[in-house]
Amino acid sequence: MTERVVLAYSGGLDTSVCIGWIAEETGAEVIAVAVDVGQGGEDLNVIRERALACGAVEAEVADARDEFADEYCLPAIKANALYQGEYPLVSALSRPVIVKHLVAAAKKHGATTVAHGCTGKGNDQVRFEVGISNLAPELTCIAPVRDYAMTRDKAIAFAEAKNLPIVTTKKSPYSIDQNVFGRAVETGFLEDIWNAPIEDVYDYTQNPATPREADTVVISFEAGVPVAIDGRKVTVLQAIEELNKRAGAQGVGRLDMVEDRLVGIKSREIYEAPGAIALITAHQALENVTVERELARYKRQVEQRWSELVYDGLWFSPLKRALDGFVDEANQSVTGDIRMVLHGGRAVVDGRKSGESLYDFNLATYDTGDTFDQSMSKGFIEIFGMSSKIAAKRDLQG
Amino acid sequence: MTERVVLAYSGGLDTSVCIGWIAEETGAEVIAVAVDVGQGGEDLNVIRERALACGAVEAEVADARDEFADEYCLPAIKANALYQGEYPLVSALSRPVIVKHLVAAAKKHGATTVAHGCTGKGNDQVRFEVGISNLAPELTCIAPVRDYAMTRDKAIAFAEAKNLPIVTTKKSPYSIDQNVFGRAVETGFLEDIWNAPIEDVYDYTQNPATPREADTVVISFEAGVPVAIDGRKVTVLQAIEELNKRAGAQGVGRLDMVEDRLVGIKSREIYEAPGAIALITAHQALENVTVERELARYKRQVEQRWSELVYDGLWFSPLKRALDGFVDEANQSVTGDIRMVLHGGRAVVDGRKSGESLYDFNLATYDTGDTFDQSMSKGFIEIFGMSSKIAAKRDLQG
Amino acid sequence: MTERVVLAYSGGLDTSVCIGWIAEETGAEVIAVAVDVGQGGEDLNVIRERALACGAVEAEVADARDEFADEYCLPAIKANALYQGEYPLVSALSRPVIVKHLVAAAKKHGATTVAHGCTGKGNDQVRFEVGISNLAPELTCIAPVRDYAMTRDKAIAFAEAKNLPIVTTKKSPYSIDQNVFGRAVETGFLEDIWNAPIEDVYDYTQNPATPREADTVVISFEAGVPVAIDGRKVTVLQAIEELNKRAGAQGVGRLDMVEDRLVGIKSREIYEAPGAIALITAHQALENVTVERELARYKRQVEQRWSELVYDGLWFSPLKRALDGFVDEANQSVTGDIRMVLHGGRAVVDGRKSGESLYDFNLATYDTGDTFDQSMSKGFIEIFGMSSKIAAKRDLQG
Amino acid sequence: MTERVVLAYSGGLDTSVCIGWIAEETGAEVIAVAVDVGQGGEDLNVIRERALACGAVEAEVADARDEFADEYCLPAIKANALYQGEYPLVSALSRPVIVKHLVAAAKKHGATTVAHGCTGKGNDQVRFEVGISNLAPELTCIAPVRDYAMTRDKAIAFAEAKNLPIVTTKKSPYSIDQNVFGRAVETGFLEDIWNAPIEDVYDYTQNPATPREADTVVISFEAGVPVAIDGRKVTVLQAIEELNKRAGAQGVGRLDMVEDRLVGIKSREIYEAPGAIALITAHQALENVTVERELARYKRQVEQRWSELVYDGLWFSPLKRALDGFVDEANQSVTGDIRMVLHGGRAVVDGRKSGESLYDFNLATYDTGDTFDQSMSKGFIEIFGMSSKIAAKRDLQG
Repeated sequence: MTERVVLAYSGGLDTSVCIGWIAEETGAEVIAVAVDVGQGGEDLNVIRERALACGAVEAEVADARDEFADEYCLPAIKANALYQGEYPLVSALSRPVIVKHLVAAAKKHGATTVAHGCTGKGNDQVRFEVGISNLAPELTCIAPVRDYAMTRDKAIAFAEAKNLPIVTTKKSPYSIDQNVFGRAVETGFLEDIWNAPIEDVYDYTQNPATPREADTVVISFEAGVPVAIDGRKVTVLQAIEELNKRAGAQGVGRLDMVEDRLVGIKSREIYEAPGAIALITAHQALENVTVERELARYKRQVEQRWSELVYDGLWFSPLKRALDGFVDEANQSVTGDIRMVLHGGRAVVDGRKSGESLYDFNLATYDTGDTFDQSMSKGFIEIFGMSSKIAAKRDLQG
Repeated sequence: MTERVVLAYSGGLDTSVCIGWIAEETGAEVIAVAVDVGQGGEDLNVIRERALACGAVEAEVADARDEFADEYCLPAIKANALYQGEYPLVSALSRPVIVKHLVAAAKKHGATTVAHGCTGKGNDQVRFEVGISNLAPELTCIAPVRDYAMTRDKAIAFAEAKNLPIVTTKKSPYSIDQNVFGRAVETGFLEDIWNAPIEDVYDYTQNPATPREADTVVISFEAGVPVAIDGRKVTVLQAIEELNKRAGAQGVGRLDMVEDRLVGIKSREIYEAPGAIALITAHQALENVTVERELARYKRQVEQRWSELVYDGLWFSPLKRALDGFVDEANQSVTGDIRMVLHGGRAVVDGRKSGESLYDFNLATYDTGDTFDQSMSKGFIEIFGMSSKIAAKRDLQG
Repeated sequence: MTERVVLAYSGGLDTSVCIGWIAEETGAEVIAVAVDVGQGGEDLNVIRERALACGAVEAEVADARDEFADEYCLPAIKANALYQGEYPLVSALSRPVIVKHLVAAAKKHGATTVAHGCTGKGNDQVRFEVGISNLAPELTCIAPVRDYAMTRDKAIAFAEAKNLPIVTTKKSPYSIDQNVFGRAVETGFLEDIWNAPIEDVYDYTQNPATPREADTVVISFEAGVPVAIDGRKVTVLQAIEELNKRAGAQGVGRLDMVEDRLVGIKSREIYEAPGAIALITAHQALENVTVERELARYKRQVEQRWSELVYDGLWFSPLKRALDGFVDEANQSVTGDIRMVLHGGRAVVDGRKSGESLYDFNLATYDTGDTFDQSMSKGFIEIFGMSSKIAAKRDLQG
Repeated sequence: MTERVVLAYSGGLDTSVCIGWIAEETGAEVIAVAVDVGQGGEDLNVIRERALACGAVEAEVADARDEFADEYCLPAIKANALYQGEYPLVSALSRPVIVKHLVAAAKKHGATTVAHGCTGKGNDQVRFEVGISNLAPELTCIAPVRDYAMTRDKAIAFAEAKNLPIVTTKKSPYSIDQNVFGRAVETGFLEDIWNAPIEDVYDYTQNPATPREADTVVISFEAGVPVAIDGRKVTVLQAIEELNKRAGAQGVGRLDMVEDRLVGIKSREIYEAPGAIALITAHQALENVTVERELARYKRQVEQRWSELVYDGLWFSPLKRALDGFVDEANQSVTGDIRMVLHGGRAVVDGRKSGESLYDFNLATYDTGDTFDQSMSKGFIEIFGMSSKIAAKRDLQG
C-alpha cells in the first residue's frame, strides 16, 4: 500500500509546493490539513480546493478557533504567560493545537508521516515534532524546507513548472506568522538590531502615536477566565477578538525584542498582540487583588517556567501538565472586574472590583476605622529580622 | 548622662513635632538627622535650622544623592528590580541609605536609640528597624506615631501649643514619599480600588495623553552601569535625573497597583518613576542582547527574589549579598547602547548595539551567508523531546 | 455567660496545671481536648478523666491516628518532605490536625479562646496560632507558658497546692514531642552542639551499630500512596507503624541536626523517624523510575518550598494548597514496588518494579537490541551547547 | 600538511585501538593525551609508551589530580552538589578538566580535531563536546565508537590484526569510570532494575554490613574548603584520598539509583564515592551552623541547578560561572570543625564547632540565661500569619 503523509497546509506557496515535492521525494500520497486558528485570510474551502488542485489525495480543514482560544490561549492568560517577560507565546501556543489536528488526520487516513513547512533553525520545527512525537510516537516527521532543501526559489520554479494554481508574487519582505492571539514578524532589515521597525511592519495595531480618543473597557473574569466585556458575556475567543480590535486600534501590544530561541541563537522579533496583552494585563491586575502574597510570589516563578516550557515546544510534557494544576488552583478566586484605559499604545488598569478581594479597606486605610493592630508590629519586626541580625553581628560589625 | 535619641528628620510637621514629643516621652536628648536622597524640597540648611529651633540638641544633614544612586539605585537597575513585576522599589531603596546615616550619627553622638516617623502598618518601619538592628544591634528603635500614639491631630496641637516654627497647613490629602528614584502616593479616595487616580496625584510626570513630540534617547551601559546619555558621560545620579526629566515629560513611569505589603495586607499605591523605568527597560533590553539564555532565565528568578528581599527590608541580609554577587557576575558583559523612544507614557526600545553582543547575524539571518547548520536540528529535536516522548507513550496514548 | 477556653491537653503536668491556671487568669471555663496522633502513652479515657479531675468543665478525646496518617503524613510522603533536606516534619505535621480538633471543639462548646502549652521561642506556637487564625479567625489564642509566665517550677507548686491528681516526677532531662510519624528530642547537654547524643536519647530506634540480621521489605505504592508491605495490604497508618517497628529495629531514621527555626534562631534537634524515612526513601526511589526528568527536577524545588511552608506553620495557606495540586499531579504514575534492605541504620533501595516505569531497558541497555539512535546525538550536542558556545567565544577565548 | 587529531587516551583497549582506527578513517596523525584524575591503574609513563607503540605520533600525559581536586571537586563540595539529591557528579566533574588538557594539547600540536571514546547514548559525549566547543569552538569532535561504529568486537579484531601491545582480556562484565572523587559502574545484570548489586561490583568501599570498629574523624573547613583532618593540614586532594580510605573502609558512599540522563533516558547506576559523600555531608552540617536561614534556603535551589548544569555538561557556561559567584559568597563563613562517625555505611555528624557559628546558645537554651524575648512572638505570629488568615477568611470558612 502507498505510504501516506499528512502535511500541515496553509494554502500559501510553500506548503502548496510541498504537496508535490513530498510526493516526488517520498512516493507517498499527501493529505493536506489546514487548521484555522484565527490567522484570517482565505476561506477554508478555498484552501481545501487548492490543496486538492495541487495534488493532495485528501484535504481536511478545521475551524479550531474556539478550541485554540479555550484550550491554548486561556491557560496562557491564567499563567500570565510572557516569555522573557514580554512575548505572549503567539506562535508557540498555536503549534500544539495544529499538532492535534495533524495527528487526528494521520490516524484517520492511515498516514505514517507528518510534514510541516518550518525551517531548520527556528522554534516551530521543535514544537511540531516534539508535539507529534508525544501524541503519536509512531509517526515520522519531515520538513521539506529543512530536509529536502526546498528553498523559496526552487519552490517558485516548481510551482511554475507544475503550473500550480498559486499566485507566485514577489516575495514579501516579511516572514509572518499570525493567529487570533497575535502576529509575529521577522524581516531582513530588522536583522540589523540597531534598525527600528517601520509602520509598514504592523497589521493588527494602529500607530500608538496618532492622537485619538481613549477607550475604556471593563473586563470581567470568573476563576481566571474572561467572561464579559463591558457587561456583555463573551467566549474567550470573542474576548480576544474584541480586544484585538479595541486595543489594536489604540496601538496596544506592539513588541520589539531580541529573543532567546530554543535552538541556541538570539533573534530579533516584532510582535503584535493587542488582545493578548490587554487580557494578561487585566488578569494580572485582578490577581494582585485576589491572590494571597506567598501564592502570588511563587506563581511568578511558575509562570516563567510555564512560559519557557511552552516556548520550548513542551506543551504535552508532564511538567507542563503539573504546572497547569498549580495555575488552575491559583486561579480559583480570580473573579471580578478590571477597568482598563486603552490609549496611546498602553493598556492601563485604573480600577478593580471583586467579591473575592483580599484587599481589606479597613486594614489598609489610614482613616478612622482602621482595624490593623499596630502594636503587633514591634514583635513582628524583631523576630522577622532576627536571623539577619544574628548574621550581621558576625559579618557587618567593625 | 542623659540618653540620646537619633531621629530620622524630614523637616515636615510630623518629625518636627517628634523632636519634642520624644524628649517628653523619654527624657532623652534628640539629635535630628536629615538625609538628602533627592526628595527635593527645602535646602538642607533650612531643615537643619528648623530642627534646632524645634529643640534638637544636634542636627546633622547629609547630601547622600550620589551615594544613593551609586550604591542603592544602581544594584536595582542591574537586577531589573521590579517588585510584583512593576514597582521599582523607590522607597524600599532609600531606607537602607538613610539607616546608614542614622547609625553613623548614633555612633558619633553616643545615642542609644533611633527614632523614625513611620506608622505601624507599613513596610518602612520594618526596613528602618531591621536595617538598624543589622548595622547596630545594640541600638533600640522607637516610632512615636506607632509607639506613642502620636496622631496627626495631636501633632498639630503639640506644634501649636509649643509654638513650633512649622506651618501647620491643612493636611494634604496625599501621603507622599519621594526621592530621586521615584515618588509614591497614597490617598484616601484611592483606598477605594475602583476609583481611578486623577492628574492632581502626579508630580514627576506629565500627562501621557497630552499630544507632544517624541524624544529619542540613546543610553550607554558598561557592565550594567549607565555611563552615557546621547554620548555625554553621566554619573548614575545624572542618568536618573536626566531621564526623570525627559521620560517624565513624556508621561513615562506611572504605576497604579495593588501591592502585597510585608505586614500581610494589600494596599493601593500610585508610583511615578520615569528615570527608573526608562533605565531598567533599557538595561533589560541590553541584557537580551548580551546575556546567554540559561543565565538570563535564571537571572529572572534571582531578580524576583532580590526585589522581594529589598522590598521586605532585608537589604543588609546575607542572601541579598550573595544574590548581588550573582547579579554582578551576570552584568559583566552588559555593555552597549540602547536607543529608546520616550513618548505617550511609553519607553520603547527600538535599537541595540553592543561589542559584547551574543546576537549573531550570520546565525540568525534567513539571507544567504547563514552559518546555522540545519542538519543538526533533527538530532536535537529527537533527543531534546525524548523524555517527554517516553512519558507520553505511557500517559497520552489511547 | 462565662467565657470558655479550649485547651490542647496532653495529660501531662504542664497542660493539667494549665486547666486551673487559665481559669484563675481569665475566669473562663476550660474545655480540655486531647488528640491521639500516635504519641503512645496513656489511654485516652484515663487522660479524659484526669482533665475533668483537674477542673475542666468538659473533656474531648479523639483518636485521630488514621486522619493524621492519611491527610497529613501522606502528603508529606508524596512531597518527599524533608526540611533542610533531612527532617521529615514530624511535629510540624501534627499541629494542623490538632488545630482542626481544637477548632471543632471550640465551635461545639461555644469557646472564644484556644490555649496551648507551647513556649514563646519555638515553632509550635506559630503553627498552632496561625492554624487557628486560618480556620477560625474569630478565636483568640493564649499560651500560659508564654503569656502568663507559667514556668515548670510554678506549675509543680500549683499542682501540689491544688492537690492535682498528677505525678510530679523529677523533670526529665529531655524535652520530647512524638507521634506516629516520629519523635523529636531536645535536651540541655545537646545545647552544646559539640556534644554527641547518647543512646539514652532514643526510643523509637535501636542502636544501628549493634550487629543483627538485615530485614528486607517490599513496599508497594499506588499513585504515591503506600498500599502494601511485602504483599499485604496496609493503610497509610499501618505502613508507618510497621516500618516504625522494622526500620526502627535496624536503627533507621536517627537525625542529629542544627535547624533553622521560623523564629530566627538555630537550634539543635535530635529526631527519630524510622517509618517516615523508610517510606520517603522508597517513594523517592520509585519517583526516579516513574517521573519524567523535567517534572522531577521541578518537583525537587516544589518539595523544598512545601517543606518550608509546613515547617513554618502555613499548612492552611493558599500556596500550600496550590503546591498540593502540583504534587498530586506529579504522583499520578508513582505506582510500583520498591525493595529495600533495612540494616545498620540504613534503608537502602536495591530493586524497583513498576508498570508505569519510564525506564526503558531497550533504550538503556548496552547489549544488542538497543533501540537508541546514536546518530541523533551529534545534532543534539551541537544545538544543546550552542548558546553556551556563542557566549564562550566572547568570554573564554584568549 | 597532515591533519592532526588529539585523542582522549586511557591506555585501555578501546582508546588504544582508536589511535589506528582514527588514522585509518581520517588519514590524520593521532596525538594521545592521558590525564590522571586519580583513576589509579598504570603508571603514566607506561600509558605514554603504549600510545606511541599503538601508533600515536605524540603522547602527552598529565598528573591533574590536584588541579581536579582544587578546581573541580572543591566547587562541588562548596555547592553540596548531589544530582537528584544523591550522585556527587563523579564523572561529570572529571570531563571539564580532561577537556582543558585536550584543548591545550590541540593548540600545542596544531590539531584540528578532538576524539573521545564515548558512546552516543551517554552524558559524557555531551560533556566532552560541549566543553571543547566552549574552550575551542574551532575544533571538531569525533567519537569513533559513535561515529565510526567501532564496537568492542571490532576493536578486539583490530588489535589482534595490528598486533597492538594490549592484553585483550575477556570483556569485564562491568563498564566502569573512576577517579579520585568516586567510581561509577554499569553492568548488564543491573540493567534489570529489580536486580540488586552484588559485592563484586564494588572496589572503593568495603561491605558496610561487616562488623568492625567505628572510625571518628574531625574535618576542619575554612570558607568552605576542607583544610585539616584530625588536626593535620591537608590539601583538598589529600582530604578526598584520606576519606576515600577511611570512609571507604566503613562502607560509606555506595549509591544505587535510577538516573535521568541528559539524553532523555533513564539508566541504572551504581556509584561509590566515600570521600565525596563524607566531605559533602560534613560541609552541609557546617553550613547548617554558619549560614543564615534565608541564604541557606536559597542556596539549596542554587545547589540543585548547579548540579544539573554540571551533570548536563555545562561546566563552562555563563550560568555556571554566575552560580559559582553565589556559592563562593555563601561559603565565606563556612569555617569550623565537624566531628563525624564513619561506621556501617554511614557518615554521621555528631559534633560541630565554629568561630563563625550563628547558633547562639543563649537564644536557643531553655535554661536560665535565655535572652530570647518571648513577648515579641505574639506580634510576630499575628503579622506573619496575616495574609494567610485574610485568604482563609474567604476560602476556608463554612
